[in-house]
This record gives sequence, C-alpha cells and structure tokens, in this order.
Amino acid sequence: MTDIKTIEEALYSYIPKNTIYEKNLVDSMRYSMEAGGKRIRPTLTLAFAELLGATAKEAMPFACAVEMIHTYSLIHDDLPCMDDDDMRRGKPSNHKVYGEDIALLAGDALQSLAFDTMTLDETIDLSGYEKACKCVSILSRYCGTIGMVGGQVIDLEYENKNATLDIITEMDKKKTGGLIKAACLMGCVVGNANSDELLAAEKYAENIGLAFQIVDDILDVTSTEQELGKPIGSDAENNKTNYVTELGIDECKALVDKLTIEAIESLSVFKGDTSYLVTLAKKLATRTN
Amino acid sequence: MTDIKTIEEALYSYIPKNTIYEKNLVDSMRYSMEAGGKRIRPTLTLAFAELLGATAKEAMPFACAVEMIHTYSLIHDDLPCMDDDDMRRGKPSNHKVYGEDIALLAGDALQSLAFDTMTLDETIDLSGYEKACKCVSILSRYCGTIGMVGGQVIDLEYENKNATLDIITEMDKKKTGGLIKAACLMGCVVGNANSDELLAAEKYAENIGLAFQIVDDILDVTSTEQELGKPIGSDAENNKTNYVTELGIDECKALVDKLTIEAIESLSVFKGDTSYLVTLAKKLATRTN
Repeated sequence: MTDIKTIEEALYSYIPKNTIYEKNLVDSMRYSMEAGGKRIRPTLTLAFAELLGATAKEAMPFACAVEMIHTYSLIHDDLPCMDDDDMRRGKPSNHKVYGEDIALLAGDALQSLAFDTMTLDETIDLSGYEKACKCVSILSRYCGTIGMVGGQVIDLEYENKNATLDIITEMDKKKTGGLIKAACLMGCVVGNANSDELLAAEKYAENIGLAFQIVDDILDVTSTEQELGKPIGSDAENNKTNYVTELGIDECKALVDKLTIEAIESLSVFKGDTSYLVTLAKKLATRTN
Repeated sequence: MTDIKTIEEALYSYIPKNTIYEKNLVDSMRYSMEAGGKRIRPTLTLAFAELLGATAKEAMPFACAVEMIHTYSLIHDDLPCMDDDDMRRGKPSNHKVYGEDIALLAGDALQSLAFDTMTLDETIDLSGYEKACKCVSILSRYCGTIGMVGGQVIDLEYENKNATLDIITEMDKKKTGGLIKAACLMGCVVGNANSDELLAAEKYAENIGLAFQIVDDILDVTSTEQELGKPIGSDAENNKTNYVTELGIDECKALVDKLTIEAIESLSVFKGDTSYLVTLAKKLATRTN
C-alpha cells in the first residue's frame, strides 16, 4: 500500500502555484493541508482501487480530492460561528493564524480545488471521463446536504437538546461517514468494481465510519488533550448527547468491536488481498488519538 | 432564449427534498436561491449553448450550477467576517435570517450541489461524461483560487490600501469575471464549440465581465439604496480604490462603452444568431441596478 508520505507529496503537488496576490490564501490552504492527520480517507480510496487491480497513480487524484474536502470541513468547523476551536492537531486553527476571512475563503477554495483536481487533464488521461465524472458525483453528493454538511447541521440543531440514538446515528453516518463512504466508493469506481463489490465497500465504509465516530466519542472522555491534539471533554461541555452519553463506555467499546467485525466480513466478496483493509479497520477501532 | 422563470424553475428543482433533520439548511439554501437577481450567469451559459445549436435542456444543469456557485459566494460574502452586509437584494442577508453557522454551511452545500447537479444521471444522459467533466473542470477552476475566490482575496488584501489600476483589474477579472467566463465557456462546451469560438466566447466574457464590474462601481456612486437593493457608497466608506476612484465617472463610462463594443465584435466568428448576446452586452452596460 501507498505510504502517507507519498499521499502527502501528491496532495501538496495540487496546491496552486505562482499566485502573486493570493499568497495569503494559498499559505492558509497549505497550512491546513500540511497539518498532518491520519490521511484515512485518501488511504481508503487507494486501498479499494488497488484491491481491485487499479494503480495508486490512477486513484491518487481522487484520494487527494477527498482529503481536500476533509481539510476544508475542518477549517470551517473551527470558525468562531461554528465550533469556535482555537486548536487543531496541536496547532493554532487556521483562522487563528490567517484570520476568519481568509480561513473561510481557504475552505471555499479547497472545496473547488477538490473538483478541479478530479477533472484535470492529467487525471482524465489516466482515468477517462466516465470514472472522473462518477467520482465527482459521489464526492459532491456525500459532502453536501445529504452527506457531511447535512451531518454538521444535525450536530448544530441538537446542541443543548437531547438527541435520540437514532438521530445521533443519522448525524454520525452523514458527518463522519459521508466522506469515508465517498472515499471507499471512489476507489471502487477507479477499480471498476461490480455492483456486489460496491455494496460491500459501502457496508465496510458505513461500519468503520460509525465505529470511527464512536471511538472519537470514547476518546473525548478517556484521552488527554496532549494525546488528541485538541481539547477533550468538548461534547460534555457543550451538553451534547453522543454514543457514550447514551450507552456508556463499555457498551460503546463492544459496539465498536461488532461494527469492526462486520466491516471485515463484508470484504469477503472481493477476490483480491483484503489484508490491508482488515488491518486498517482493526487499527481504527483500537486507536488512541 | 429561455426566460428567467424557466431558469428559476430548473434551479429550484435541484434543491434537496425530503430532508427531515436538515430543514433549516435547505430553507437557508432556498432563501438565497429564490432571492432573485438578474440570473446573468445561467443566461450566458444557455445563450452560448443555443447559439451553437444545443438545446436549453442540455445546457440547463450547467447554467443552474454556475448560479448555485454565485449564490454561495453572495452568502459567504455577506458574513460578518467578510463584508458584513445585513441586506442583499432588498432583503435581510442569509445569516441575518438563519444565523452565521447555517449560512456558512448553506454556502458550502450550495457549492457541492453545483458539482452534484453537473454529474447527475439525468445530466449525463443528455450531455455525456466528456462534456460534464469539462464543465466541472471549467467551473471548479474559475470559482477557486485562480478565479472568484482569488479575486475576493485580492479585494480583502487591498482594503484600506491604495491598489493600482492593474491590481483592481486583476481583482475584477477574477472576482466578477471568473464566473462570467465559466458561464460562457460551459455553454460553448455544451454546444461543441471549436477553438476559435471558445476564444471568442472568452473575449466576450472578459469584456462584459469587466464592464459589469465598472458599472457596479459607477452605480455605487450614482444610484440610490432603494434602486440597488443594497447600501450605496460602500467602497468609499471602506476606503476602497476602484475604477471610479481611479478614473472618474466619465472615463469609466467611456471604458464601459469600449469594452461593450469589443465584446460584441468578438461574436463575429459565430455563424449563428448572436443578436441575443449583443443585446445582453448592451443591456448590462446601461443597467441601473
């Protein structure tokens, strides 16, 4: 599998160059793109594409695109009118460094850059119009109203309200799960997956996506600020209900295990070597940051 | 040519439906989409497509997409961390009605919706993957760092600074001109334009785009708040240099005439009936709001 360094090199290669007047904007985009993170979403795109026999090179623009969308969402999430977070991954959040106006626009430009990246001439040369179009369709759908942004809105609407577990699940599926699903499905498109394989990837994505969010909720209670690189206890502070407040830590841990096993089982339809995706699901379930 | 009512019906048909938890978000998106405006950008896409023999039906998803991008940019532009405008088109701006958080997310979701719209199955059925991909490429490029957002950044950087006419031109070309150019070029792609026609459309777009912005600067001084539907004199108040502060009203009016004539002349390479685009260029040059 492609290592994180290779993904990051490709990601950074898409940052606009030779801008004279927009230096601040591009610096702000680069600041958040280079701020690290686990690069889970691009890794998933590459892993599914490679599992199906496609090259990492062909899948890379789509892998980078989903990471750009993720990065834009973090910048906008941290803004004062949203979560108002001063820190992200152990560093000052984007707007604390570049100001709210530039941070807002850097997020906007990163979203555009994702779709630009997926339809560049060199992307089309490798993948053709059909795959690129299908990936644009998937990513735009799962990052918009019925995906990531929709999930953020549910999150906002239920601040200081008691959300039921159904609503929390709906929120988590969209907010975190949306992009994870898009990442897996784009990998499948690049690898010419059949309909059974698409369904299996969707199942895998839904399960690890929900498990990922529940682990986040657990870590928000059990981890330290230093380990997470962001303030802990933020959900409790904002009176937010989540999986942990509803089910308790032990039941949540059991649920993460169950979801992870189901995610791994769904991979059985693939003929190729699924060991990387199996290990990834386990690693995400047992992560400490 | 397709009338505004038909464009608006198509535009509204893309607003997400059946959302339970995201009602506020969708209401906020609809509020700004339905707030009127001249619908210049979608009109341009349709006009170039029809000039080249394509149907309005085929061009419509791309026409609507550019209007969605325009709408998102207005919502974000009005936010307190940007221009902090309470009024837009004679109505309270989006964040005054829905709050800053929902307004931010409505803008984000509208950008995603634009790319979603361009790659829907029914769009592909009419236009095929190649045209859709090329339009995604054009729109994402001209709304991002080297286009609309880049222009907004130049605008921010030169607040309270004396920008030269070169810098003002660069800003106007990107901020207003970016989407106008994208609109014209997408119409050309839908209509299978050849390279001469693409160049001519680009020239037309650049000229009417710059003329449009200079007229805006003129109206900011000569119009009334009631007529414009937004506060006048805002550039002077923010100590912004623009075409009018640099060249004066008379020279600006002469420049608008010159740009309009050049825009019209560039249409001569087209074999079809260009009268609609000729009239549109003249109408934009003499508009009073």
